[in-house]
Amino acid sequence: MGRLTARRPVLRIGPHGQRRQLDSLAAEEPLELRVNGTPLAVTMRTPGHDVELAHGFLLTEGVLEAAADVSAARYCDSLDERGHNTYNVLDVALAPGVAPPDTGLERNFYTTSSCGVCGKASLDAVRLKTRFSPAADPLTLTPALLSTLPDRLRAAQRIFSSTGGLHGAGLFDATGELLVAREDVGRHNAVDKVLGWALLDGRIPAAGTVLMVSGRASFELVQKAVMAGVPALAAVSAPSSLAVELALDAGLTLVGFLRGPTMNVYAGTQRIVVSEVVAGA
Amino acid sequence: MGRLTARRPVLRIGPHGQRRQLDSLAAEEPLELRVNGTPLAVTMRTPGHDVELAHGFLLTEGVLEAAADVSAARYCDSLDERGHNTYNVLDVALAPGVAPPDTGLERNFYTTSSCGVCGKASLDAVRLKTRFSPAADPLTLTPALLSTLPDRLRAAQRIFSSTGGLHGAGLFDATGELLVAREDVGRHNAVDKVLGWALLDGRIPAAGTVLMVSGRASFELVQKAVMAGVPALAAVSAPSSLAVELALDAGLTLVGFLRGPTMNVYAGTQRIVVSEVVAGA
Repeated sequence: MGRLTARRPVLRIGPHGQRRQLDSLAAEEPLELRVNGTPLAVTMRTPGHDVELAHGFLLTEGVLEAAADVSAARYCDSLDERGHNTYNVLDVALAPGVAPPDTGLERNFYTTSSCGVCGKASLDAVRLKTRFSPAADPLTLTPALLSTLPDRLRAAQRIFSSTGGLHGAGLFDATGELLVAREDVGRHNAVDKVLGWALLDGRIPAAGTVLMVSGRASFELVQKAVMAGVPALAAVSAPSSLAVELALDAGLTLVGFLRGPTMNVYAGTQRIVVSEVVAGA
Repeated sequence: MGRLTARRPVLRIGPHGQRRQLDSLAAEEPLELRVNGTPLAVTMRTPGHDVELAHGFLLTEGVLEAAADVSAARYCDSLDERGHNTYNVLDVALAPGVAPPDTGLERNFYTTSSCGVCGKASLDAVRLKTRFSPAADPLTLTPALLSTLPDRLRAAQRIFSSTGGLHGAGLFDATGELLVAREDVGRHNAVDKVLGWALLDGRIPAAGTVLMVSGRASFELVQKAVMAGVPALAAVSAPSSLAVELALDAGLTLVGFLRGPTMNVYAGTQRIVVSEVVAGA
């Protein structure tokens, strides 16, 4: 895990002067993902949990449905100038019968609809690719339970406190128990690592779970939750308009601005069970 | 500018109960960028300033050097299901003699080096593509001036206060005067819009400027600053390890955790002029 952070000298300036010291930074390196030997994508990520990252990425792009869809995942012989393996090229061999992704994968997600490139087309594309339906998930959640998730995620984010530079994502069960937490310089990578863990653990579709993220909720993150069969996504910060539209379309519960006892529910409010309603709140 | 935000119903839950109300969300829609009619990339962005976004993206990918490299930028006839133009497909026609980008542009940035995919290769790739050298820029900055930038950027972020969901980027001159500020659901898009504005305004290379971003400083953001000839990048939050390495390599001043009078300088400390040093700080 030594590659998760890096120590660098820094000049720290404050109101009363300055000093030189060492600072811990979140590590960032490129990862080239190959499928059956063919390069598919390069992402800038924090090293660690790369196999989960690859599984989560391929799950949420619609290539994988279960762990058995992968026959092997291994680092290629990618050498740096000193002849050391960089551990930055990962090849995923698909099981027989599993169709490899189209190249230009990312673009296909948005341009499969006849209506051109628009928000509606993006929703249609996800609907076409989805194997699972969060809409049918009977999960219910109380505000009291939801309010505990940010602190539980932060407690699990060992790195964040030392660098301040990592996005966190955690998967919780219906009782608020943390199943897994992952961190990354890229928010989508943190989510891919979490969902890849779930795939490898035989938990996809991830029925009865809540995915919690440390930042904002974009269309892309809602897409990933839907593709993994997660019925609820909670974010510390704001969702985008298209994130809300996709959540409504897919039957996903979307909670934003989750900070202590306050939160905004943008979609899937039927899952939120409030025992007492105080008038005039 | 009506497409910058969208109003959506929300269930707001607090410690004393709940209520339904309307909430303003940051708009997010796909933008397909074409060059000479050929699709190049799709990015999820906040609509608005799309021509700047396209110019900034192509500048920081090494395709453009000046505004004259583009002969025309216009929305294609991309229609939604009601026959309305989506304004989500933008075609950039390059001036005669300007080489179009390779397809698979993004990947080329990381895989042009012989040492495989690694941080070092990423630095080499930027060095190969850079037309300008921030290292030679004689800009100097005082902590007092830097400390004013976050508030100036926030003041210019009209949307942020209403949605909480947008990244901000601003370009400042050497006196701390804000030249331009842009917002987007994607931090790289906000920076592309700012740098595209600078290109269209004849300010590239952006000598003597400071680029300020509302969040973290990733490798990608440092890369964009370097490609535009910006000598200093300041971020409210943390940089990544590779962001610092690229800044050191390119001679860019990189400031992180810029919050009021305190800040961390990770690279290019020679540009920071401190008039008084208080012992024991």
